[in-house]
Amino acid sequence: MSFFETVADIDKVIANLPVADGTIQNKAAARQGQLTKPPGSLGKLEDIAIWMAGWQKTERPAIGHGQCLIFAGNHGVVAQGISPFPADVTAQMVKNFEAGGAAINQLCTVADLALTVTALDLETPTADITKGPAMSAAEVLAAMRAGAGAIDDDCDYLVVGEMGIGNTTSAAALCLGRFGADAKGWVGPGTGLDKDGVAHKAAVIDKALAVQQPVGDHPVALLAAFGGRELAAIAGAVLAARSRSIPVMLDGFIATAAAAALTAGGKLDVLDHTMISHMSPEPGHLRLAVALRKVPIVDLKMRLGEGSGAAVATLLVRAACAAHNGMATFAEAGVSEA
Amino acid sequence: MSFFETVADIDKVIANLPVADGTIQNKAAARQGQLTKPPGSLGKLEDIAIWMAGWQKTERPAIGHGQCLIFAGNHGVVAQGISPFPADVTAQMVKNFEAGGAAINQLCTVADLALTVTALDLETPTADITKGPAMSAAEVLAAMRAGAGAIDDDCDYLVVGEMGIGNTTSAAALCLGRFGADAKGWVGPGTGLDKDGVAHKAAVIDKALAVQQPVGDHPVALLAAFGGRELAAIAGAVLAARSRSIPVMLDGFIATAAAAALTAGGKLDVLDHTMISHMSPEPGHLRLAVALRKVPIVDLKMRLGEGSGAAVATLLVRAACAAHNGMATFAEAGVSEA
Repeated sequence: MSFFETVADIDKVIANLPVADGTIQNKAAARQGQLTKPPGSLGKLEDIAIWMAGWQKTERPAIGHGQCLIFAGNHGVVAQGISPFPADVTAQMVKNFEAGGAAINQLCTVADLALTVTALDLETPTADITKGPAMSAAEVLAAMRAGAGAIDDDCDYLVVGEMGIGNTTSAAALCLGRFGADAKGWVGPGTGLDKDGVAHKAAVIDKALAVQQPVGDHPVALLAAFGGRELAAIAGAVLAARSRSIPVMLDGFIATAAAAALTAGGKLDVLDHTMISHMSPEPGHLRLAVALRKVPIVDLKMRLGEGSGAAVATLLVRAACAAHNGMATFAEAGVSEA
Repeated sequence: MSFFETVADIDKVIANLPVADGTIQNKAAARQGQLTKPPGSLGKLEDIAIWMAGWQKTERPAIGHGQCLIFAGNHGVVAQGISPFPADVTAQMVKNFEAGGAAINQLCTVADLALTVTALDLETPTADITKGPAMSAAEVLAAMRAGAGAIDDDCDYLVVGEMGIGNTTSAAALCLGRFGADAKGWVGPGTGLDKDGVAHKAAVIDKALAVQQPVGDHPVALLAAFGGRELAAIAGAVLAARSRSIPVMLDGFIATAAAAALTAGGKLDVLDHTMISHMSPEPGHLRLAVALRKVPIVDLKMRLGEGSGAAVATLLVRAACAAHNGMATFAEAGVSEA
């Protein structure tokens, strides 16, 4: 894996981003206008089909080998009491993924996604972010390489998700470091904190920011400061997917925050190949979607992670591509136009 | 078909509605609380699984034989210039359904729904509602029987949709007759009217209401007044499904309006076995969902009809049931609880 050996490798990829094929997108949009339906009446399904066409660089996009990547990591900040679940649950859930018992296993079966689970040094949590950086730059790069390397050679559509007790705290700190505002605006109940727990989490994040100023405006710096390994791996996978023009469906708050780390230099277009699958009830997710200028496809009140919302949205991608590719045009069907 | 021979048959069914099995719903909800995820974190998917369990009367609900019914009808009110498409398109689209070229064909394939298309006397449009009732009570009952009769014996999950140039006008008039307010609040662009076209449509509906007062508060009276046959057929299918405890996924504005006709006597619980699949951009749909006290599952800006939004939402039902049935519990997976 020659990817992401150095920070300069990251910078080089971000400076040379492939873009969607505009000619093919225009052709796909023109086809949508000819299909037997009132123009625009498939709504977001039309947008999805055109997005897929542009990144897959074909007028008839489809999910051939769709892959769901889950990355798992542990967080030293759990020592601050920011999650109702014990840290052991991260490894226990990895076993559950491997045994097929988690939500994401069932959802990947329904959505016909290949599931790849990568546990990242679970026995060595990242450092407590209230005391200093979560990771070194070298550790961030290693996790980003793990993310990039998890993508199969024939992958043509990617879902990214995560598991890591404590990682809504990392994600919120990362958002605060990247976009500013205040800690209270980025925190939420996560897996189930009460009001006092959420206030405590905000205080923990404020402390992490104070201890680590200045963080800098580089993806690696942000991820090193706040962690965790699974967020860095998602960032690596999302960036590697971009270099291969693979469309990516982001999951909820944590996966979106991890991808947002790639915009640290100020370029939002680094995420042009991604869509946000669903709106999480975790309050930071709406703020993050607005900051990234993206509208989540659905709002199902899901707040599970694991890639679960993105796997569900994949069903809509399949529906969008099926309608786009399989429908007759007005001319083909002999239907009168408006 | 002994169903719906007389108005009294309709009244008898509505007076003796089977209800969801509350014991099974409680068991399904308890199971959701034991699955390996934070409680409630699958959001609407949990609600869907519990709804399915209650109506299918099993703790492990699933779509076995899922069916999508499309009913097509023609409307005399098109003479008033309320659609940008010619009335011929209704029959042309029925042919397109039969040939497999429409959106709903592709979506039913993805969602594994059996598609049944019923064209209702297309060569004999219902009467112009600005001049009098669209249909006689006998015609309404015939259409309701056609709807009820289209449901297969082994159907355990139903999607209802429609095709009929001019039928947003019928649907809006029906909503105005049922729920009051003003015509402008119930009309919208339909398949693509401009602002003047929408204003004209509202005037047409106002005229229909004025000419036909008093309409009365019975489903058959409402459907007779405003039509069309496809709306009556949907009402018949929805009511027949209720009598068999089959869960029903409603499509957009027109299908929901047709189902709402069943509440004419004031009993909203006649639609307890239904969910509204998606929020249509047709402005009346939001008002209608509020009136029925239902929250559409997704908002995909779809406005096509044909059952298309309900077919897409069926994918979420499949996801919901798969997670509900297939996930391990905390105890089974050896995962620690909060």
